[in-house]
Amino acid sequence: MKIGMIGLGKMGSNMRERLRRSGIEVVGYDLDENLRDADSIEEMVEQLESPKIVWVMVPHGDPTRSTVEKLGELLQEGDLIIEGGNSKYTEDRELDAIMEPKGIGYVDCGVSGGIWGLDNGYGLMCGGRDADVERAMPVFDALRPEGPREEGFVHAGEVGAGHYAKMVHNGIEYGLMHAYAEGFELLLAKDIVKDVKGCFQAWSRGTVVRSWLLDLLVTALDDTPELKGIDEYTTDSGEGRWTVEEAIENAVPMPVISAALFARFASRQENSPAMQAVAALRGQFGGHAVKM
Amino acid sequence: MKIGMIGLGKMGSNMRERLRRSGIEVVGYDLDENLRDADSIEEMVEQLESPKIVWVMVPHGDPTRSTVEKLGELLQEGDLIIEGGNSKYTEDRELDAIMEPKGIGYVDCGVSGGIWGLDNGYGLMCGGRDADVERAMPVFDALRPEGPREEGFVHAGEVGAGHYAKMVHNGIEYGLMHAYAEGFELLLAKDIVKDVKGCFQAWSRGTVVRSWLLDLLVTALDDTPELKGIDEYTTDSGEGRWTVEEAIENAVPMPVISAALFARFASRQENSPAMQAVAALRGQFGGHAVKM
Amino acid sequence: MKIGMIGLGKMGSNMRERLRRSGIEVVGYDLDENLRDADSIEEMVEQLESPKIVWVMVPHGDPTRSTVEKLGELLQEGDLIIEGGNSKYTEDRELDAIMEPKGIGYVDCGVSGGIWGLDNGYGLMCGGRDADVERAMPVFDALRPEGPREEGFVHAGEVGAGHYAKMVHNGIEYGLMHAYAEGFELLLAKDIVKDVKGCFQAWSRGTVVRSWLLDLLVTALDDTPELKGIDEYTTDSGEGRWTVEEAIENAVPMPVISAALFARFASRQENSPAMQAVAALRGQFGGHAVKM
Amino acid sequence: MKIGMIGLGKMGSNMRERLRRSGIEVVGYDLDENLRDADSIEEMVEQLESPKIVWVMVPHGDPTRSTVEKLGELLQEGDLIIEGGNSKYTEDRELDAIMEPKGIGYVDCGVSGGIWGLDNGYGLMCGGRDADVERAMPVFDALRPEGPREEGFVHAGEVGAGHYAKMVHNGIEYGLMHAYAEGFELLLAKDIVKDVKGCFQAWSRGTVVRSWLLDLLVTALDDTPELKGIDEYTTDSGEGRWTVEEAIENAVPMPVISAALFARFASRQENSPAMQAVAALRGQFGGHAVKM
Repeated sequence: MKIGMIGLGKMGSNMRERLRRSGIEVVGYDLDENLRDADSIEEMVEQLESPKIVWVMVPHGDPTRSTVEKLGELLQEGDLIIEGGNSKYTEDRELDAIMEPKGIGYVDCGVSGGIWGLDNGYGLMCGGRDADVERAMPVFDALRPEGPREEGFVHAGEVGAGHYAKMVHNGIEYGLMHAYAEGFELLLAKDIVKDVKGCFQAWSRGTVVRSWLLDLLVTALDDTPELKGIDEYTTDSGEGRWTVEEAIENAVPMPVISAALFARFASRQENSPAMQAVAALRGQFGGHAVKM
Repeated sequence: MKIGMIGLGKMGSNMRERLRRSGIEVVGYDLDENLRDADSIEEMVEQLESPKIVWVMVPHGDPTRSTVEKLGELLQEGDLIIEGGNSKYTEDRELDAIMEPKGIGYVDCGVSGGIWGLDNGYGLMCGGRDADVERAMPVFDALRPEGPREEGFVHAGEVGAGHYAKMVHNGIEYGLMHAYAEGFELLLAKDIVKDVKGCFQAWSRGTVVRSWLLDLLVTALDDTPELKGIDEYTTDSGEGRWTVEEAIENAVPMPVISAALFARFASRQENSPAMQAVAALRGQFGGHAVKM
Repeated sequence: MKIGMIGLGKMGSNMRERLRRSGIEVVGYDLDENLRDADSIEEMVEQLESPKIVWVMVPHGDPTRSTVEKLGELLQEGDLIIEGGNSKYTEDRELDAIMEPKGIGYVDCGVSGGIWGLDNGYGLMCGGRDADVERAMPVFDALRPEGPREEGFVHAGEVGAGHYAKMVHNGIEYGLMHAYAEGFELLLAKDIVKDVKGCFQAWSRGTVVRSWLLDLLVTALDDTPELKGIDEYTTDSGEGRWTVEEAIENAVPMPVISAALFARFASRQENSPAMQAVAALRGQFGGHAVKM
Repeated sequence: MKIGMIGLGKMGSNMRERLRRSGIEVVGYDLDENLRDADSIEEMVEQLESPKIVWVMVPHGDPTRSTVEKLGELLQEGDLIIEGGNSKYTEDRELDAIMEPKGIGYVDCGVSGGIWGLDNGYGLMCGGRDADVERAMPVFDALRPEGPREEGFVHAGEVGAGHYAKMVHNGIEYGLMHAYAEGFELLLAKDIVKDVKGCFQAWSRGTVVRSWLLDLLVTALDDTPELKGIDEYTTDSGEGRWTVEEAIENAVPMPVISAALFARFASRQENSPAMQAVAALRGQFGGHAVKM
């Protein structure tokens, strides 16, 4: 099997490598000359055999949209595009609506795994029509972790459902991380507790909270005792925001994940305007001193 | 009528003044020689006529406890103690259990009004036995705002209920202030909005959110345009914490007031340990750069 | 002065009446024959003198959009549309972009006041160009509460800023209501508190939490003691959701208002799927009985 | 080695069994005649050799307190009590203060593992003086999971620190469970997602959110597709409440874990009094219909 791949950044390059290790030929294209196998998207498409499969792995938003639209002009009826980036599911729906009349298949695929994926495999969540997903299955099987397919791959539903599942996955991740983080802060604050890292490590086996994130937190505490010197500043990607927006859209109460998202916003503020207002109000009615 | 008052700080002094304006004699005692009318609690008690009434207005915790216990030794059956400070209701229950066998009445009274109370009157919430509350009514009527009694005074329930009601009042206050504060921050963040103060001021009449706190926020925005330079640092008094603790004790969901309380905690942190943990975790699994 | 008004529902009819009371002529149009003064929008527009002003007061979304677009065909350069409904500010921006090239002015105006507005006046927040707002000022002055203009009216900023301010107003309202509601629930839960309504009423004067909403809650507790029999089911309008979405868009932490919004979502659920999941999980690891 | 164990319920019996499997003799006592090895605590204590070790595994609160106090009379200088139940850490501090003058060692130990512990081992978190913990180490090594000691055991700090760590563990557990639960609800609500269980299962390997709780949720979804018929009703144990109370006590913001706790409270309400208040307020100012 031979597929095209557009976008050879940190994720894309590793995925190309994992595909090659399992015997799938990959013709890669990237803006960076040092990374690519073909010098243009046209050239890449020409090197594939019909029906052609192209995996798109570029930043979401305009880059993904323009890349898919360009493929829509180069590919033909019966070919297949897999959008493996971080698109919002609504974008998938719009792009599919352009491809569908041309007879070009469209499958969206959320990819989890980060820097660990090359060796351990990537968790994959895809959305699309049955026949399209079926056709791409050798690619998915090569990328996902070894073991039973259903433990590392899901055909979640219609076009968009793959990125939707990945979005929810990331939202959950926000909540999980913050739950551990709150526990960390409380243990650190309590004087009778002398070995905070030891507590987390002791939960690694046999307790209800054991998880991969817990293991990573233990590693982080090994690397940086009590996390001293690490700045609270934390960015957020689109998926966390989209998850809460979707909760609102679907009238789903989401206090935990939204709290985790808001805490990230707050971590980037030097001085919270909301708390300035609270402080100012207290100064007005209570004669409480206001710090300037 | 003539009563004793122990504790002549900012609140106590103003209350003594308001009582005197309405014709009630007050013998005040304070550690500060310049404020007091009598040089000791004993002397103060001696100057009162039986059955005696003493209003206690000292810091909550040990000062209140030791003051009330001392009064328990100086007063006699039929006398009455009004605990007007910020005691936790459980403290009232304990102190009453000491006074009750001696036949000394105990009424707890939450007092709201701050620096505005002297002229406008104080909102009063009291707890105790009917006969004791009835006896203290001239004092309450002198302190509360003019107008119908029930709009500035309540006999909320048993001993402790007054401070309980005041505690809940303050918890609500936390939530109200933070709701305005979040709105302030969002308006300030939005580029198309050019007159944030004007928005709040326009709500002063005729809109659903009009309130005294809103008026104060407008004043604060007049004093300090856009609150520039005010520090987010905000302390919290016992009542906010107790309110959420009572919510937990009584299995009452309290997301709004607890969020307002937690935001105050966060306003005093230089670097959030919880967010350090989140940042460190992201560094572990995503290869995201961690700021040091 | 003579203006047109489209939409004579509960709000529109009252506003027409208030305008007429202050001497402004109004030609109203509505789908309902019994309410309208003109039998078509065309007829209504014809009865106005140039430069013409038309106030639009129909449901947000498609009705507002199609009405404004129709006015765009009937009105001429120099005329003015005031969108007084509950449009999202983004809709205002889009509609203005259609009107601006035609030389038709566009002002958006958030209106607060509900059933009390006819007699007390409406809180008004508008957005638009200075000249357009200036032209509409007699209309605004007639609708707003008496007293200083700035206490019932604001020109908040660019086109869209009026509805934006109204949106934030409603978001704040969600938070305020829920803060009182949490306090109500806690007071009700506590056995030593015997007079819950009395507590709220005692805060009406002289305390920090006094407000119009507090007065309404006292009235509600008068009407329905302890609110017995009232169903928790609470709907939410667009503004609450939009406020939280805008908070996410602008990276503004909004724990209080979002919690109030989520509580409304939850109030409409028979059985929370999230809590089903928690119950099921506890059944898995703890052998805790799961209720079916 | 031979130790005593008081309390042979679900947990205690399994722990006795695991200890015996690893060669430690256990003399157990329980109120239930069918479970116990000795017919009284006195008899149990007599059968041990000095210095004696007794593991207490009875319900927290009064049963634990009276059991430990009784042991304080039966044991002698140099003996050791291990409190392995769910005591609050403050209780440990008080009991140790009674034992310490008698020269009786006191170690508190939080035990995690539930019904899986017998075969997999229990996660152990203990607090106490170094010498006491050292003496009990063979017991801890027998109970904890196989593998490196530090991955299933921690000496967290002073007396009380063990139960403190276990309390925080359980608080984190609340947050983790609710994060997955919110994700479940959103996936279930979205029409384009057709295989909700498949999504969770696909995260089992290779994704950031993989954990034991995730595996359990997949099992639960296997047992009860889409969790249909499971009631939302969820109880809460002391530890979740204590965690949030400690957060308040130590000024630690804890939005995520508190939200998870509040959601449990709400799951047990037929009709939320807070939302009754919100509904009633809306009825007052908006003329919105109130459901009765």
